[in-house]
Amino acid sequence: MLEYNIIEGGVCAAEGFSAGGLHVGIKAGSNKKDLAVIYCENKCNAAALFTQNKVKAAPIKVSKAHLADGKAQAIIVNSGNANACTANGIEIAEKMCELSAKSLGISCEDVIVASTGVIGQELAIAPFEKGIPALVANLNKAGNDDAAQAIMTTDTFPKQVAIEFELSDGTKCKIGGIAKGSGMINPNMATMLAFITTDIDISAELLEWILPPLNSHTFNAVSVDGDTSTNDMLCIMASGLAGNKKIVVRNEDYGQFAGALNVVMTDLARKMARDGEGATKLIECYVENAPDDKTANSIAKSVVSSSLVKAAIGAADANWGRILCAMGYAADIADDFDVSKADVKLGSAKGEVIVCRNGMGVPFSEKEATAILSEEEVQIYIDLHHPANVCGRAFGCDLTEEYVRINADYRS
Amino acid sequence: MLEYNIIEGGVCAAEGFSAGGLHVGIKAGSNKKDLAVIYCENKCNAAALFTQNKVKAAPIKVSKAHLADGKAQAIIVNSGNANACTANGIEIAEKMCELSAKSLGISCEDVIVASTGVIGQELAIAPFEKGIPALVANLNKAGNDDAAQAIMTTDTFPKQVAIEFELSDGTKCKIGGIAKGSGMINPNMATMLAFITTDIDISAELLEWILPPLNSHTFNAVSVDGDTSTNDMLCIMASGLAGNKKIVVRNEDYGQFAGALNVVMTDLARKMARDGEGATKLIECYVENAPDDKTANSIAKSVVSSSLVKAAIGAADANWGRILCAMGYAADIADDFDVSKADVKLGSAKGEVIVCRNGMGVPFSEKEATAILSEEEVQIYIDLHHPANVCGRAFGCDLTEEYVRINADYRS
Repeated sequence: MLEYNIIEGGVCAAEGFSAGGLHVGIKAGSNKKDLAVIYCENKCNAAALFTQNKVKAAPIKVSKAHLADGKAQAIIVNSGNANACTANGIEIAEKMCELSAKSLGISCEDVIVASTGVIGQELAIAPFEKGIPALVANLNKAGNDDAAQAIMTTDTFPKQVAIEFELSDGTKCKIGGIAKGSGMINPNMATMLAFITTDIDISAELLEWILPPLNSHTFNAVSVDGDTSTNDMLCIMASGLAGNKKIVVRNEDYGQFAGALNVVMTDLARKMARDGEGATKLIECYVENAPDDKTANSIAKSVVSSSLVKAAIGAADANWGRILCAMGYAADIADDFDVSKADVKLGSAKGEVIVCRNGMGVPFSEKEATAILSEEEVQIYIDLHHPANVCGRAFGCDLTEEYVRINADYRS
Repeated sequence: MLEYNIIEGGVCAAEGFSAGGLHVGIKAGSNKKDLAVIYCENKCNAAALFTQNKVKAAPIKVSKAHLADGKAQAIIVNSGNANACTANGIEIAEKMCELSAKSLGISCEDVIVASTGVIGQELAIAPFEKGIPALVANLNKAGNDDAAQAIMTTDTFPKQVAIEFELSDGTKCKIGGIAKGSGMINPNMATMLAFITTDIDISAELLEWILPPLNSHTFNAVSVDGDTSTNDMLCIMASGLAGNKKIVVRNEDYGQFAGALNVVMTDLARKMARDGEGATKLIECYVENAPDDKTANSIAKSVVSSSLVKAAIGAADANWGRILCAMGYAADIADDFDVSKADVKLGSAKGEVIVCRNGMGVPFSEKEATAILSEEEVQIYIDLHHPANVCGRAFGCDLTEEYVRINADYRS
C-alpha cells in the first residue's frame, strides 16, 4: 500500500514550481480571474493527453507541437474563451506562448498553452500583451489558489490537491495538481483541463507511458453531460528536483510514483464530477466481477451518464430499474454479460441498501434508500458475479434543473 | 415521387383493423387510460423490431417468440408498468396474451404484447382479468384515439397518423400508426413503442426486410435523452385486405409501399422527438455532402443528442460552437471528415441564417438568429462539402428544466 500525506500548495507544492492567476479582461463584464501561469525554475520532462474530439481548439495543436520534445517549463492558460473555431486561433495561441516565453526568459517551445470557454469567438491578443507580463511579475510559490481560480469557467469551486510520498531510498517526492471541469465533461479523454506538477526525477518517456492507463480510470471515468470538449488537456511536468535517482525503467520507484499519481488524478477527477454544472452530488459507480475491463468500465460509465439515473439520484429516488436499463445499453459490453446475475446496492455515508438481486427488485425500505441517496456523495455498487472478477468505476453527478439554466444562457 | 393523402383513423384506417383503449387500473391513482388493443379481423403477416438493450423486458421476449412465424392478429399494450426486471414478468406477459386471445377468439401465439412504464415493479394480473374482456367488448373502428392515448406515459399528446396511396394498378392502400415516446428515447432501436397497420397484401419476409433500413433514419434517428429503454418495439401488421396483387418480390409496388411506410414512420418519429419530456421544440439536424452514411447519421445524431446544444436551442441561443463540438465527438466518423470545410445554417419557419462557414464563425444578426430559434420547429443544416455527397438526418428536442422535474419524481 502506498503511504502518502495530503499537503498544501497544489501545483506549487513540488520543488521548483510557482504559479499565479489574474483577471486580464478576457472574461468581459466581470473581474474574475481569467489567466493562469504555472512555471518551473528549470526545464521539466513533460507529457500530455489531448481531446479526442476531431474538432480541436488552436491551443491543443500548438501545445502538441511544443511537447514533441518531451520538455516544458511553463503553462499559460486562459478561461472565458476556448480559442476554437476561429480564423486567428493558431496565431493567438502562439502569441500567448511567445509573450509568456519573453516575460519568463525561456524558450517559446517550452511553453504549453491551454484555453477554456466559449467556442467560436475570436480571442484578442490585447489582454495578453499587458496581462502576461503582469502575471509573470506576480508569479509566486503561494500562487496555486489564484491559478486554480483563474482556470475556472462555471466551476463553483477551485479543484486542487497535493500529496507527499517516499521512494524506496527515503527520498521525499511531491505531486500536486489543479483542474477545471464543470460542463462538457464526458471524457475520452477527460473533457477538462488538468495540470499536474511533480519534483520527481523521471524520464519524459515514462511520463508519456503512464498517463493513458491512469487517465482511463480517473478523468476518463468522469461524465457530467456526455459532451466532449474541443479543448481537453491533461499535462504533467516533472522538475526532477526531489533528488531521487532518476527513474528511467519501470522499477519499484516507478510503481510508487504511479500509485501517487493515481491518488492525485483520482482526487481531481472526483472533484470534477462533484462540481458538474448544477450538480448537488457526486455519483460513483463501482462494477465488480465483470467479464472484462471494457464491460466493467462501460457499464459504470453508462450508469453515471444516464440522464434518467442522474435525475432520479438528484431527487433521492431509488429508481433502480433505470440503473439496470443503463447497464443494458452500455456500449461494447461482453456477450456473456448476464443481467439475471446482477446485484445492485446503493450506498453513502448513511449506510447501504440492496435494491436488486439477480437482476430483479428486492423489497427495501424506501425511507432508508431516500436517506442514503440524500447524501452529497452517493455510491452505486454493481456486482455481476462473473468468474473473471474484473472491476471498473466511473464518476458522475446528478442532473438538476440548474444544469439546464446554466447552459441555456451560457454565452449571454 | 410518391403521392399520398393524409387520412383519419390512425391504426384503424386500414381495412380490417379496429382498436380500443381503457383505464383498467395499472396507472394507480389516476383514471388515465392504460390498456390498448389493436385487432385485425383476419390473421396478418407481421414483423417487428425490438430494443437492442441487453436488458429486455418480458413482453419483448414473449412477442419475439409469438412473431417467429411471421403472423399476428392482435396487439395488447399496457402503460404505467414496463413489466421488466421482475420475477413474474414472463408469466404476466403470457397471461396478457392468453386473456386477449380468449376474449378475441384467436390463437394466443397470434397476440403481440408490449408494456411501457416503470421498470422493476411487479405487474399484477388482476387488472387484466377484468380489463381485457372489457377492452375487447369495446373494440371499434373509431377506437384509434383511445388506443393512442392508452399507450402514453409522460407523452403530452397522442401520436398517430394514417395515409392513403395507390399502387401501380390503381389499388388504394392505407397505412396508419400510433406511437409513444417522450423520455428514454435514444434509439438503436427507437426506444419507443410504435404500432403500424396496413391493408396491403405483402409477405412477412418483405415486412421483416423493410423495417431495419426505414427504422434507421426514422425512429433510430430520434434522440431525446440518450437512454435506450428495455421495452422498445416497432411492430407492423398487414391485413392484405386492400385487394392488391400480393407483393412477394421487390417490385414497383414494393417501392411504393416502402415510400408510404417511410412517410408514416417519419411522421411518428418527428412527433416523438417533438414530444420529448419537457421539450418545447423539435430540433431536426440535416447533414449534407458527408463522406459516408455512418458519418452523416452519426454527426446528425450527435448534434441533436448534445445536452449543450439542446439547452442552447431551448433558450434560442445560436451557440453554434457547441454544434461544431458535437460534430467533432460523433462516434465512428470517417477519417476524412474535415471540420474546416463545414458550414452550419440554422433555420425555421422564420427564415435561415448561416452561422459558420469553413468551420469558423461568420458574422450574423443575433436578433435574427434568436427569432429563428424561437420557433417550435428548428432545423440545423450542416454541409460537409465532401464529394461523396452522402446525407443523413436526426430528430431531437430541446433540454429544459421541465425534463429534470419530470424525471426527478417519475416513480412517485
